Amino acid sequence: MNRLLGWLPVLQWGRGYDRGALGDDLIAAVVVTIMLIPQGMAYAMLAGLPPQAGLYGAMLPLVLYAMFGTSRTLAVGPVAVVALMTAAAAGNVAVAGTEAFHLAALALTALSGGMLLAMGLLRLGFVANFLSHPVISGFITAAGILIAASQLRHLTGAPITGKTLPEVLPSLLANITAVNPATLVLSALVLTFLFWSRKGLAPALRALGLPDRAAALAAKGGLLVAVAVSTLAVWGLGLDRLGVGTVGDVPRGLPGLSLPPLDLGLLGVLLVPAAMIAIVGYVESISIAQTLAARRRQSIDPDRELVALGAANLGAAVSNAMPVTGGLSRSIVNFDAGARTPAAGAFTAVGIALALMFLTPLMFHLPRATLAAIIIVAVASLLDLRALPRTWAYSRADGAAMAATIAVTLLVGVEQGLLAGVALSLVLHLWRTSRPHVAVVGQVAGTEHFRNIRRHVVATAPDVLSIRIDESLYFPNARFLEDTINDHVAANPGLRNVVLMCTAVNEIDASALESLEAINARLRDAGVRLHLSEVKGPVMDRLARAHLLADLSGEVFLTQFDAMMKLAPDLTARTLGEARCETDLARLARA
Amino acid sequence: MNRLLGWLPVLQWGRGYDRGALGDDLIAAVVVTIMLIPQGMAYAMLAGLPPQAGLYGAMLPLVLYAMFGTSRTLAVGPVAVVALMTAAAAGNVAVAGTEAFHLAALALTALSGGMLLAMGLLRLGFVANFLSHPVISGFITAAGILIAASQLRHLTGAPITGKTLPEVLPSLLANITAVNPATLVLSALVLTFLFWSRKGLAPALRALGLPDRAAALAAKGGLLVAVAVSTLAVWGLGLDRLGVGTVGDVPRGLPGLSLPPLDLGLLGVLLVPAAMIAIVGYVESISIAQTLAARRRQSIDPDRELVALGAANLGAAVSNAMPVTGGLSRSIVNFDAGARTPAAGAFTAVGIALALMFLTPLMFHLPRATLAAIIIVAVASLLDLRALPRTWAYSRADGAAMAATIAVTLLVGVEQGLLAGVALSLVLHLWRTSRPHVAVVGQVAGTEHFRNIRRHVVATAPDVLSIRIDESLYFPNARFLEDTINDHVAANPGLRNVVLMCTAVNEIDASALESLEAINARLRDAGVRLHLSEVKGPVMDRLARAHLLADLSGEVFLTQFDAMMKLAPDLTARTLGEARCETDLARLARA
Repeated sequence: MNRLLGWLPVLQWGRGYDRGALGDDLIAAVVVTIMLIPQGMAYAMLAGLPPQAGLYGAMLPLVLYAMFGTSRTLAVGPVAVVALMTAAAAGNVAVAGTEAFHLAALALTALSGGMLLAMGLLRLGFVANFLSHPVISGFITAAGILIAASQLRHLTGAPITGKTLPEVLPSLLANITAVNPATLVLSALVLTFLFWSRKGLAPALRALGLPDRAAALAAKGGLLVAVAVSTLAVWGLGLDRLGVGTVGDVPRGLPGLSLPPLDLGLLGVLLVPAAMIAIVGYVESISIAQTLAARRRQSIDPDRELVALGAANLGAAVSNAMPVTGGLSRSIVNFDAGARTPAAGAFTAVGIALALMFLTPLMFHLPRATLAAIIIVAVASLLDLRALPRTWAYSRADGAAMAATIAVTLLVGVEQGLLAGVALSLVLHLWRTSRPHVAVVGQVAGTEHFRNIRRHVVATAPDVLSIRIDESLYFPNARFLEDTINDHVAANPGLRNVVLMCTAVNEIDASALESLEAINARLRDAGVRLHLSEVKGPVMDRLARAHLLADLSGEVFLTQFDAMMKLAPDLTARTLGEARCETDLARLARA
Repeated sequence: MNRLLGWLPVLQWGRGYDRGALGDDLIAAVVVTIMLIPQGMAYAMLAGLPPQAGLYGAMLPLVLYAMFGTSRTLAVGPVAVVALMTAAAAGNVAVAGTEAFHLAALALTALSGGMLLAMGLLRLGFVANFLSHPVISGFITAAGILIAASQLRHLTGAPITGKTLPEVLPSLLANITAVNPATLVLSALVLTFLFWSRKGLAPALRALGLPDRAAALAAKGGLLVAVAVSTLAVWGLGLDRLGVGTVGDVPRGLPGLSLPPLDLGLLGVLLVPAAMIAIVGYVESISIAQTLAARRRQSIDPDRELVALGAANLGAAVSNAMPVTGGLSRSIVNFDAGARTPAAGAFTAVGIALALMFLTPLMFHLPRATLAAIIIVAVASLLDLRALPRTWAYSRADGAAMAATIAVTLLVGVEQGLLAGVALSLVLHLWRTSRPHVAVVGQVAGTEHFRNIRRHVVATAPDVLSIRIDESLYFPNARFLEDTINDHVAANPGLRNVVLMCTAVNEIDASALESLEAINARLRDAGVRLHLSEVKGPVMDRLARAHLLADLSGEVFLTQFDAMMKLAPDLTARTLGEARCETDLARLARA
């Protein structure tokens, strides 16, 4: 029973569900539904799918997430970056807009859902950790730019195509004369209104006398205003006859259920993109969920989130939808509107179902340019161009990984960009740890503390070298370790003792163990003893299984201070000093 | 001039060269030459090349290494593992024994020589560090087994083929009836003699009255005895008519010089294998050179070794030879025979030249079975099967990488085996650092030292959590860091202060910085202050470029002791204790 409760959080929060929570969840659901109807259709269009795929993606997946998810406020559904990745992956198999393309997208959804579910059940969520923040941030910025570029077609009415900037820019220039003036004017008006409404609508409504919270919520209806007004304009002014593209027929009613195509050849081609969609979707979703949960002191279980997102995507795959994940803007709106439980998501699904049953005829004249403008406004908040110089200033390696991710994504493609970023992060990490920082340390006067002789005023004994290698000792730096100790010993002929201070050594692998054995043997031959100090428990446990400790010419000390009290007792005691002890005694007398 | 001296070590040791060094070098050269003549031909045969390719590889390359190398005693030339890798790589392009195969091997030699030279000039030697000791040891063991398997053909006279065990074993079974009895008997006799002579020849010679050192050197002539006796046996008994394969015609005279084929398509195919040959050859060579140099307190310059090996391989490529590197057994013989300078290598080249000019007719009847036996004896010393359980016992990750290298090399191939080992080492390292060891620490009584509360008797303050994360904070564990701190804070409602003890933190990358900022904000909201202690200099330098320190709710302390003296002064001073201070004062009085 506890196990079942664990996997179905709905059984926990459902028991305490009351009228207060119901009211709050219903309000949040209405606000989110109003955003989701145009966004769902827009993201389906971005993914190269018919508009209803986005609406279907806001039904069954939301109900499944409400049952399995551990976040109280995450709003699941179609999101922009995953839609772009879907378009890129399915585009490798079929032409956007065709039935084969839609089937490929469904297979992709099923595959990434299955992977998420498997990762959750096998507790493999740590795989997502290999996407560093700079890589994911660079990827989302670059994806945002590509998404905006992909909407040029709908904003201008000209047949601008291409998946990457080197494809889109020439196409833009070649089609500059094919721009449809009516479409361009409509786009400009809708974009202006939407960008203004993000900041200006709530104050305007308050100026009209609405209370603060109501004004903030009603301002989320800016999308609805843009949709309604532009649809009415097309219908009333006959803009479609001037070349303004519209959504057209959206099938009325709920989606049918069917298994996605599971042809092995197709699955093979979609394996890598499905894994990327799963991981990017998961990382986006869990970041949002954790941020929101922390604000209300709730907690998220990463493995169960994987299961819930997996179930949601499998639900999307069998209901003719598209890949889904937690979306940033709708989750924040859901949270701000006061959603208290995942029931808000289920109510949203009901709202979408009602829209599919009764409102689809109204969408016939909805201009594609309006949906494109909604996408542009949504991704504008994803772009963080200042992150690159900021990251570069903090760390060259992180900055380089971010720059590589952005450049490769924009110039080559989304999958390649993500892979390039991950690969570069790993290589740079290995390169850095292969030549770690090394400090010769001495005793800080008046303390038992030992620090770098170049940064602090410290005392050292002439015949003792205390050296701190600031890295785990493992294969990339095993030879470095040997060279470093050899160089120091060669430069100090009077040495009798070398103390390797292991505070920063979190692992000693088999390669480094061999290096330490070689160092120990060479130092012994040269009449120098090798000691270790401050070796961590887990490292010591492992060393106990090897020969090094038995062969060691010196000792293993609990602390660097103990080592120096043994090897240079007078100097060390004098450096610790009388003054310190008197201060301590005085403090004790007071205590 | 100093620069030139740096790149041409010959100009340094050459100036002090005297008659004593000349005598020692000459003796070593004679012993090494006697080993090299049969070994060179045997390794050429192993590589699928004509026997003279191995002898040519022991001429110009040795002279070039003598000029550029920094090791006094490394014996360069054809070696078994690199010969096997050459056979595998050239075998992907052409059939062994053909002219196209030889041209491919020469292109491979030129390419790996060029890479070594470039790595040396660009100081990229650290790339070799990514081969961990367990991976290289597993690879050499597996290569040794494949080398032995490849010689079954010559040892039995049956046409046994195949590059991997799943190819060789069925071929062995299928050809069991094709074994040539005369060849098999000859092989058994030669193998028995060679294995006995490794241990038994020197004592036998001493028993005959030879002085110790002379007996040890003369015992290296066991190879020569085997070669001479088996050649005479073929010639005298007409064994070739019984089906014993012989070396046949070896062209008399020195190799001609010519440029290897530099066709772009061929170079593209050989790029990855050439890089692997370069790196494996370099790692083998530098390990031997460093071990021998350390015994005589000499030093090796890794970048110049790359240049010297690069020059040696380019020399091999233009003189119709094969890839060369430093060989273990001949280097040890060279060292033991008393070689004092690289001139010994140049004298060896002269010895090989003399053999090529005058001795080739004598090699006509040399049985291939004898060369195969020489290879078997040489690789037997490479096999270290006990390394696998020993490594596994010390570290599961290293053991797994080693086992994967051995299994993939034996079952799939040499290149795949090496790549699998390197990839698995990296993935296991990342996996481990993504979930680091975490210790809650307290003060060890009577000291300023703080250790794990689970392993030591320590004092802790109830409202202060001191926590030590035993890993650099970087992207694979950034989320782990957040989860860990959140869990601890959630479990301790009375907390007022968290001290992150950073002794083991060698880097804080941009991902971890964001996590720390998030932790700081959440703790502040919960009324808990976040402090840092013992932050290393380079980490602090970088943090100074970010916002974290300005936003930090707590302080940065030089030591964990300082932190506790501020946050829980009475407890900390009491734990430090009167007794300690009195001991120190007494010690000072004595000093």
